[in-house]
Amino acid sequence: MRKRIAVLPGDGIGPEVTEAAVKVLQVIGRRFKHTFDVEYGSIGGEAIDKYKMPLPDETIELCQQSDAILLGAVGGPKWDKNPSELRPEKGLLAIRKHFDLFANLRPVIAVPSLLKASPLKEEVVKDVDLMIVRELTGGLYFGEPSKRTEKAAFDTLVYTKKEIERIVEKAFELARLRKGKVTSVDKENVLQSSKLWREVVEEKKKGYPDVEVEHMLVDSAAMQLVTNPCAFDVVVTENMFGDILSDEASVITGSLGVLPSASIRADGFGMYEPIHGTAPDIAGQGKANPAATILSVAMMLKYSFGLEEECAAIEEAVNAVFEDGFYTADLASPTDRVLSTNEWTDKVVDE
Amino acid sequence: MRKRIAVLPGDGIGPEVTEAAVKVLQVIGRRFKHTFDVEYGSIGGEAIDKYKMPLPDETIELCQQSDAILLGAVGGPKWDKNPSELRPEKGLLAIRKHFDLFANLRPVIAVPSLLKASPLKEEVVKDVDLMIVRELTGGLYFGEPSKRTEKAAFDTLVYTKKEIERIVEKAFELARLRKGKVTSVDKENVLQSSKLWREVVEEKKKGYPDVEVEHMLVDSAAMQLVTNPCAFDVVVTENMFGDILSDEASVITGSLGVLPSASIRADGFGMYEPIHGTAPDIAGQGKANPAATILSVAMMLKYSFGLEEECAAIEEAVNAVFEDGFYTADLASPTDRVLSTNEWTDKVVDE
Ligand SMILES: CC(C)[C@H](C(=O)O)[C@@H](O)C(=O)O
Ligand SMILES: CC(C)[C@H](C(=O)O)[C@@H](O)C(=O)O
Repeated sequence: MRKRIAVLPGDGIGPEVTEAAVKVLQVIGRRFKHTFDVEYGSIGGEAIDKYKMPLPDETIELCQQSDAILLGAVGGPKWDKNPSELRPEKGLLAIRKHFDLFANLRPVIAVPSLLKASPLKEEVVKDVDLMIVRELTGGLYFGEPSKRTEKAAFDTLVYTKKEIERIVEKAFELARLRKGKVTSVDKENVLQSSKLWREVVEEKKKGYPDVEVEHMLVDSAAMQLVTNPCAFDVVVTENMFGDILSDEASVITGSLGVLPSASIRADGFGMYEPIHGTAPDIAGQGKANPAATILSVAMMLKYSFGLEEECAAIEEAVNAVFEDGFYTADLASPTDRVLSTNEWTDKVVDE
Repeated sequence: MRKRIAVLPGDGIGPEVTEAAVKVLQVIGRRFKHTFDVEYGSIGGEAIDKYKMPLPDETIELCQQSDAILLGAVGGPKWDKNPSELRPEKGLLAIRKHFDLFANLRPVIAVPSLLKASPLKEEVVKDVDLMIVRELTGGLYFGEPSKRTEKAAFDTLVYTKKEIERIVEKAFELARLRKGKVTSVDKENVLQSSKLWREVVEEKKKGYPDVEVEHMLVDSAAMQLVTNPCAFDVVVTENMFGDILSDEASVITGSLGVLPSASIRADGFGMYEPIHGTAPDIAGQGKANPAATILSVAMMLKYSFGLEEECAAIEEAVNAVFEDGFYTADLASPTDRVLSTNEWTDKVVDE
């Protein structure tokens, strides 16, 4: 197989972690006889510095000609005071919308050797294995009108039936390949958009008799993710609820720094990125943990290229390195030897 | 002091827990020489059964003639399939809006003897003492248009500057009487309403130089409530974010079943209620834990009537009963003796 991948390192530790992930990708290429052509583009803060816009046309073009995108991270204090169109995260929102990356997949899985870093009791989280499927191109993020008047401000939460259908279908498909359960999260007792959401789920579930379905209100879901996270398999929800719940879910197992994500389109094209931020305080020092970005490449292999075996090879290697007790600075206990980004990546490569 | 209190028991365990709380209220009245006149009204499911509406005019009138409202809980499976205007929770939304109860105060405090029930590690939550101040009469809950078309559904998130100002002021006032810190939660990088929200906070903080202010994005707040909840004092946010975050916060200390809440108006008139639900499975069996409703009465004494000492007397009594190891069924360990609602209430009365 020959694939072309657009790599957008972004800001802060983005360049280091994407470099590590590309290294692993190339090793997989050699081992499984695929060719991955990698080309680099600008996004976020560094694109603002270079092109005066967070998502330059050159980058859009590069991505258009690629089969998938690997993103590092965007943002940093340097651009925090910029006017809204010149903020790094606008690049992120724009690329999601431009490429119609409507399905954001955020797996959260308990890694035994990282549970000590969890704020939750071990017995509550040790069996967590869930995936938040967040709608990424609709709702309050893009609804019009979104405006200011002299005395008030307005945002619009709008969903078409079609938009809901495609994300709900995606959730059902994913559940089928996992534990067979979908939890649909809404605020049906308050929002019209949630009523439509719930109707669509009820309609769609007829096509998936093998999948168990439950509806849950968003406030209740926010509780259950803390009190009983093992009860979830696939959680599907709209954009804003998904933003909140996926971040909440990301901290429960203590593995925030190692969680990957995928943002995909109907045809499988997708953008893959770690969920952690740019960590400007440690940028450029070789201290960053590349695990999340490496696991994002694993998701790319599986979800965009259908390479399940190659994906599993990376996931197993990463787990093995953790189990062998090798950590970067963020995860090491005082008694552990601390590995640099490169050293840790080489351990994964060795596996 | 002579005050008139409208008691709306509602559904499920509502009648039992409000009865217990009224008993404690009357004891406080005798002890501190106040007269509390209590009158009962209908709301929620039982109002739907009796009056065919979740908030009958009789109830509105009763509340209008009262100085405060004590609510039990509303809802239950019996009414779950009703059309939207005939759902118990519509009564709740209607009473909030009718009486302009814009400030929802939800304290979360770690009770040492209940920490064992927390899903979080003891060291993470043992010092939690925060209060979520949720805007309760604006935003997505009441914004127009909120409608369906054939192919889509719309909700509107709207806030006027005035609406934001009064809730933000309330938060600053409360922080002043607590640890002196306000965390304002928004989604400023996406929403126009959040930009206005943040501006108002920046403006208002000038009047409170003694209060420390931080802004936090809602996704980040959802994480921090789990990873570092002790860092919060007062958290102020809009209606929907507040719904999600306050429920998330309510489970971190293991004291969900004992948390009170207040929903107040500018002039101090307010509605007080436990945050737990109607627990239809144990309704009418004398098993319910009345602590949250009793503590809601304490909040009423403080926030609506300015009776700080009386409030403290109740809070101390409740804490003492817990510390003495007396629990209702929901909190008792297998080796504890289980007290009924009445027995537990009498312990509080004794204290
Ligand atoms: C940066 C921000 C606009 C973005 C979002 O809210 O979608 C981020 O929080 C995320 O979840 O990827
Ligand atoms: C019942 C529901 C409408 C209500 C809300 O969302 O406000 C409840 O969840 C609450 O928080 O009091």
